[in-house]
Amino acid sequence: MSTTDWSLPETDVFDQIRAALDDDADAVLSTVIDVEGSAYRRPGAKMILRPDGSGAGSITAGCLEDEVRALAADVLSDGDPRVETWDLTGEDDVWGLGVGCNGVITVLLEPLDDSYRPVVEARLGGDPIGVATAVGGESAGLEPGARAYYDGEGFSDAADGALSDPDVLAELEPAMATLYEGGKAETVTAETDGGTVEVFLEGVRPPPELVVFGSGPDVAPVVELAKLVDFRVTVVSFRGGKAGGERFPRADEVVSASPADVGEMREWDGDTYAVVMTHNFLDDRIALEALLETPVPYVGLMGPHDRFEEMREDLAADGRTLTEAERERIYTPIGLSLGGDSPYQIGYSIVAELLAVANDRTPQHLSRRAGPIHDRVDVDADGRTD
Amino acid sequence: MSTTDWSLPETDVFDQIRAALDDDADAVLSTVIDVEGSAYRRPGAKMILRPDGSGAGSITAGCLEDEVRALAADVLSDGDPRVETWDLTGEDDVWGLGVGCNGVITVLLEPLDDSYRPVVEARLGGDPIGVATAVGGESAGLEPGARAYYDGEGFSDAADGALSDPDVLAELEPAMATLYEGGKAETVTAETDGGTVEVFLEGVRPPPELVVFGSGPDVAPVVELAKLVDFRVTVVSFRGGKAGGERFPRADEVVSASPADVGEMREWDGDTYAVVMTHNFLDDRIALEALLETPVPYVGLMGPHDRFEEMREDLAADGRTLTEAERERIYTPIGLSLGGDSPYQIGYSIVAELLAVANDRTPQHLSRRAGPIHDRVDVDADGRTD
Repeated sequence: MSTTDWSLPETDVFDQIRAALDDDADAVLSTVIDVEGSAYRRPGAKMILRPDGSGAGSITAGCLEDEVRALAADVLSDGDPRVETWDLTGEDDVWGLGVGCNGVITVLLEPLDDSYRPVVEARLGGDPIGVATAVGGESAGLEPGARAYYDGEGFSDAADGALSDPDVLAELEPAMATLYEGGKAETVTAETDGGTVEVFLEGVRPPPELVVFGSGPDVAPVVELAKLVDFRVTVVSFRGGKAGGERFPRADEVVSASPADVGEMREWDGDTYAVVMTHNFLDDRIALEALLETPVPYVGLMGPHDRFEEMREDLAADGRTLTEAERERIYTPIGLSLGGDSPYQIGYSIVAELLAVANDRTPQHLSRRAGPIHDRVDVDADGRTD
Repeated sequence: MSTTDWSLPETDVFDQIRAALDDDADAVLSTVIDVEGSAYRRPGAKMILRPDGSGAGSITAGCLEDEVRALAADVLSDGDPRVETWDLTGEDDVWGLGVGCNGVITVLLEPLDDSYRPVVEARLGGDPIGVATAVGGESAGLEPGARAYYDGEGFSDAADGALSDPDVLAELEPAMATLYEGGKAETVTAETDGGTVEVFLEGVRPPPELVVFGSGPDVAPVVELAKLVDFRVTVVSFRGGKAGGERFPRADEVVSASPADVGEMREWDGDTYAVVMTHNFLDDRIALEALLETPVPYVGLMGPHDRFEEMREDLAADGRTLTEAERERIYTPIGLSLGGDSPYQIGYSIVAELLAVANDRTPQHLSRRAGPIHDRVDVDADGRTD
């Protein structure tokens, strides 16, 4: 597997999983289902492996990929899911080299089949989904790999051989709801009449949406960088401008729109981020006004502070005074303060800000911050987050 | 000109300028020499334009590129440098569209010739250089485009037709020294016996160096992103590891080294940044120790805080206690807090931190920060910075 496939954005990994399902190809899906201590990737990280050893995605910083590939060959020939735990804390390190991707990592390896298709279709179709997968508890009559799906309201009716015990599902539901909302994953333990069951609960959310208003050449680096960190990107050009799709080949969508249609041109929700960089004062103003009528949490506006003040005065003169809450959704000058003024450096600062806002982070050095690197959503079966 | 060429990292623009010089090709070098108000790019931003309309680099957010291209054709046929000012503040906006890349931008267009070669060779060879270029002041007998070079100690002996008046150079030197140190550019005015002279002073610094220790697949996204924002990148693999150049095709250099040789393997200076991500505890420790003996201002260490604490205890047990000053150069956990755990998201957070440290910025939202977006180095001929 090349390093390029290893570092694919998550959406591209799902694309490859779908392609394997569509082709009915032999493949193993490996998913991190539990981490103790620290690890490069979190539960839910996944890698698809094909019989020829090629694959896509990553589950550790490269420490385990060879071992997982070897095990995947067994899973393919057996046809049975396996759960394997690796202790990478280095305490049983016979080589004396301190080989330690820290942490204890548990991975589910399973032959890829259509039981994962609802997850793939939801993720790529822009919908969140929850999936519960039995990973332990044969004593309770549950096969590893048995699944149930969660849609935000409840678990759906399960097919044969699926995770379908109503008591178990009822016990899992609070935790599933929390993980579904947060797009996080965790393995939980549930008690049933027949024994203890371990279930991997995965909240899978579509990537955040980025809508960029503009058609200048400075849009391209923003699109390229945002795609690498897994935003779904739409470029909107006003007045049929110069924004042919060929100018922004990395965008998921390139559309022409009239400034008057911004509100209606698409669905706007709390997971959609807008960047306004038409370099046209009036177009920027119209886009800004329209975006403030939507629930988008972030409107980044390219240009200096003075330009925004002029825009605010213009709006006020027309009787449109911005509220404090509206002002807080407007990020201008756009971007994080990282320095540099080349097109990629400017784009980098913008996308860094998008990441921080989308992930609800205060931008700062991790080394100067208290607490763990990753957000933890440790839930028990009651759905409590600690 | 494609948007790809427009957004090239600065080093690639210099590569293309050198290629044109080597081929003795007709080309126009256009350089932003002055900005009033706010602008997408700062003085020193440059674009090379060829007779067929193709080119590389950018001087505005695309607002002026067409006008500059038209003017470049005149410059090529005349053979004479031109200085042109565009007022983009929109106040004389006849189209009523508020077309305003804000700011008043002055651009020098000149036929590319060997008078710029010392700058290109220094930049690409890893050395800083200052260059003074006359951009106004024919009354004083100075041709626009006449140059002198500065090496940190003084202006070098000038060739015929160059900017060589010792009195003018003496007057420029304090400002040149400041801009050379800061890698900034500004047009200044100097008084001579013969009249007033306007001179564009450009401090050109090589890109910062990034040295990544590691050979895992997680190194590749760091290399790719760092190259886009114009670091010069070396990947160091210990024990002849897996780091063949083909694994990191975007790196400028891929070398194998022994951990014991870190200190001697290359020159380490205050503009070199180190990222340690071998995922091997002992190798990381040896690299860390060696790097702390060098003047590098930044040692980023991949891994959780606990792992570093273990390393610190290990070092202390061997009598090597880290000082507070050393501790401040170590960034671990590495990266800015931007969220996300995919390989590109982790790489993004690391390179965002590198940019902030290299540019001496406190990472924060520009919209929540006081002051201008770009660092200003406004100097008068006395070299004062305000």
